[in-house]
Amino acid sequence: MSRLWIKEGSFITMASHQPEVLRGHMVVEDGVIQYIGENEPAASVQEQAVIINGQGLLFMPGLVNTHGHAPMSLLRGFSDDQKLQVWLQEKMWPMEAKYSEADTKAGSDLAIAEMLLSGTTTFVDMYDRMEQVAQASIDAGIRAFLARGMIGLGSVEEQVSKLEDAVAFAKQWNGAGEGRIQTMLAPHAPYTCPPAFIERIVQAAHDLDLPLHTHMSETSAEVQQNVDDYGKRPVDHLEELGFFTRPALLAHAVHLTDDEIAKLAQLDASISHNPISNLKLASGVARVPELLRAGVKLSLGTDSAASNNNLDLFQEIRAAALLHKGVSGDPTVVPAHTALALGTSMGAQAIWHNHIGTLETGKAADFIAINIDQPHFFPRTDLVSHLVYAANGRDVEHVWVAGKQLVKHRQLLTMDEEKIRSEAQASFERLLT
Amino acid sequence: MSRLWIKEGSFITMASHQPEVLRGHMVVEDGVIQYIGENEPAASVQEQAVIINGQGLLFMPGLVNTHGHAPMSLLRGFSDDQKLQVWLQEKMWPMEAKYSEADTKAGSDLAIAEMLLSGTTTFVDMYDRMEQVAQASIDAGIRAFLARGMIGLGSVEEQVSKLEDAVAFAKQWNGAGEGRIQTMLAPHAPYTCPPAFIERIVQAAHDLDLPLHTHMSETSAEVQQNVDDYGKRPVDHLEELGFFTRPALLAHAVHLTDDEIAKLAQLDASISHNPISNLKLASGVARVPELLRAGVKLSLGTDSAASNNNLDLFQEIRAAALLHKGVSGDPTVVPAHTALALGTSMGAQAIWHNHIGTLETGKAADFIAINIDQPHFFPRTDLVSHLVYAANGRDVEHVWVAGKQLVKHRQLLTMDEEKIRSEAQASFERLLT
Repeated sequence: MSRLWIKEGSFITMASHQPEVLRGHMVVEDGVIQYIGENEPAASVQEQAVIINGQGLLFMPGLVNTHGHAPMSLLRGFSDDQKLQVWLQEKMWPMEAKYSEADTKAGSDLAIAEMLLSGTTTFVDMYDRMEQVAQASIDAGIRAFLARGMIGLGSVEEQVSKLEDAVAFAKQWNGAGEGRIQTMLAPHAPYTCPPAFIERIVQAAHDLDLPLHTHMSETSAEVQQNVDDYGKRPVDHLEELGFFTRPALLAHAVHLTDDEIAKLAQLDASISHNPISNLKLASGVARVPELLRAGVKLSLGTDSAASNNNLDLFQEIRAAALLHKGVSGDPTVVPAHTALALGTSMGAQAIWHNHIGTLETGKAADFIAINIDQPHFFPRTDLVSHLVYAANGRDVEHVWVAGKQLVKHRQLLTMDEEKIRSEAQASFERLLT
Repeated sequence: MSRLWIKEGSFITMASHQPEVLRGHMVVEDGVIQYIGENEPAASVQEQAVIINGQGLLFMPGLVNTHGHAPMSLLRGFSDDQKLQVWLQEKMWPMEAKYSEADTKAGSDLAIAEMLLSGTTTFVDMYDRMEQVAQASIDAGIRAFLARGMIGLGSVEEQVSKLEDAVAFAKQWNGAGEGRIQTMLAPHAPYTCPPAFIERIVQAAHDLDLPLHTHMSETSAEVQQNVDDYGKRPVDHLEELGFFTRPALLAHAVHLTDDEIAKLAQLDASISHNPISNLKLASGVARVPELLRAGVKLSLGTDSAASNNNLDLFQEIRAAALLHKGVSGDPTVVPAHTALALGTSMGAQAIWHNHIGTLETGKAADFIAINIDQPHFFPRTDLVSHLVYAANGRDVEHVWVAGKQLVKHRQLLTMDEEKIRSEAQASFERLLT
């Protein structure tokens, strides 16, 4: 048995039955939170516990990043300030076509290192070569929800082959890493997958009892394309293909009608809101206040470092809190607590990870410690506000996943940061040749 | 004579005649850049120089924050997610009315500490008690451009008294701190100052040969009020009052017509764009692409930590680069280099500080060093992109103003950070009583 006692800390638990800031103690045993409360744990519990002095630290649930493409971190800054189709088709795809397995691994390591150092403990990833992402996640100890993304623009044979790959990946890795790895199936998008292919993927998801993940309605052009090709907008289109008969996570969902929002709520679909990527690629501004009002399961994602260009989820939390105020003209929308929930408890719920996202007895011990003894956390008016409006990922001092410490005083414990940086650089230089 | 040699570093000079990233050397003597170039300085120059090893560091001009209210840092997080008038009149003003001189000093120190630690070397400040801001700036060694803000809603006697205060402050402190302190005159806003008061202030600015600073067109409501009260929009109104016969810095300028933009360009007015404060208070989104196209002198400000809620100018640089892409639908507007210029070279020009803002021979040695040996700066595709889209203030490792090092390995050299934090906390707790 391993036992950890966080002594005299401040905790933002994100659990509704707790005070917003709990000053007290937390005990973790074998990767699970056994106690959290204002009083010291019982003397018997204090025995044989490794003690972490909580003073000057603010503990909170690890962040949940619900959409990304880890290997694309190698292309951070390679193409900025471009139209999405130029960026994707002229810059990203030709470089990605050159990726070796080593490059995919190098990009995955770089992404995971950056996520852990900035407080993300669970990430969703979609890419066309996922084995390296999965192995890198297991090696690092991060929690990951992974899907081999399928672009179905080729022949039916190619589609079938990709689906076989995706199914094999999903079966092999689901539950790996002592359960920290889970898998999904992921048609890339309605505009890159013919209807019959999506139906085949939905059927496979039923056979394997897995959720689905896709890009949807990121740009107004793709929505129009959907209407032109299929006579309906993406939500109706996907519904007709049976997509929502499985738990479904939709990335972006920027361009939605009132009817689509109501339908997504009724279908219990989840959305990964990616505010910074949507701004950077000029895709638009998602209707977040309306989605929240309708009760749609919302969460936050960075998208890849190639369209962001970082994987610091604190930036998405702040962007979500700020952007919708300015665009809607209503400064009361997406208040600080909601923004923080989007990156923690609501993020976990949106990906059906009900064992993480809050600090409560019985939950997995995925948590982070913020160094709040810095000027931008003073005065101590409202720590939730400070986390949302003043903090960033570089304020993260320690990180634990499933009770295991992965970052200590801003140093990675399970990864060799210097090696990761140099391999990422070497991979990028090879890709350029 | 003091001489500093930055050896083998990477430099983003922001000077148009230099390569975007210069790999080489910089020599500073007595606060001024004497040499910057690819070759090693002459042997005679190398003598008696303190050497800074530049490897793993990216040097760039210190950031220029062109609008803020330093003492309001004490109210960070005190009131969020509120309408501007509720926030200002029910939350900010009653608390500020209780400020003692010690509170003003504590808030100023907190703000300056945060700005220096996040790479700001020059800031513009407007507040109603400025002596403490000026003294704190001199003690810390930061460069500051200061104005006693005047709200003219009281009697003419009160107005005259405030103007006398402002003139006395401006005369006493202009050129203080070996020239690092400069002063302006600042009517708070057209909606808080009657026309005759603004005219009196303009005359005083002429008498003292000083620039003017004011808030303008932050909200659509205040623009409408201006039209209702004076029959014209704020730009025409201020022009008629002679405001633009002085160098003029306008904070916010969110709500502008095409005609106003053209006129501001023609009048050579400067604007401090405060994207995060404008989002948070739901004031709107300034017309930055149009202002840039028109050639208006644009710069960036954080506004106060009470409406932001941090003073990290890297966040404004990124917000400026991202926001206008998403809102305009054009991902090519405000490209990375322009966003970085807004926070450095263009910021300096907008406040007529032509001796700072770039790293060039003859300029004041206000510069910062970024720790780029971190995952989010890899691979080395485009360092300007990384500074804009991936960096933040916590990546700042060292800071120099006028050749004097003020931050070393993230520690303040001229300020007692722990004391500043505890005094800010004590002040805030006193204000609550």
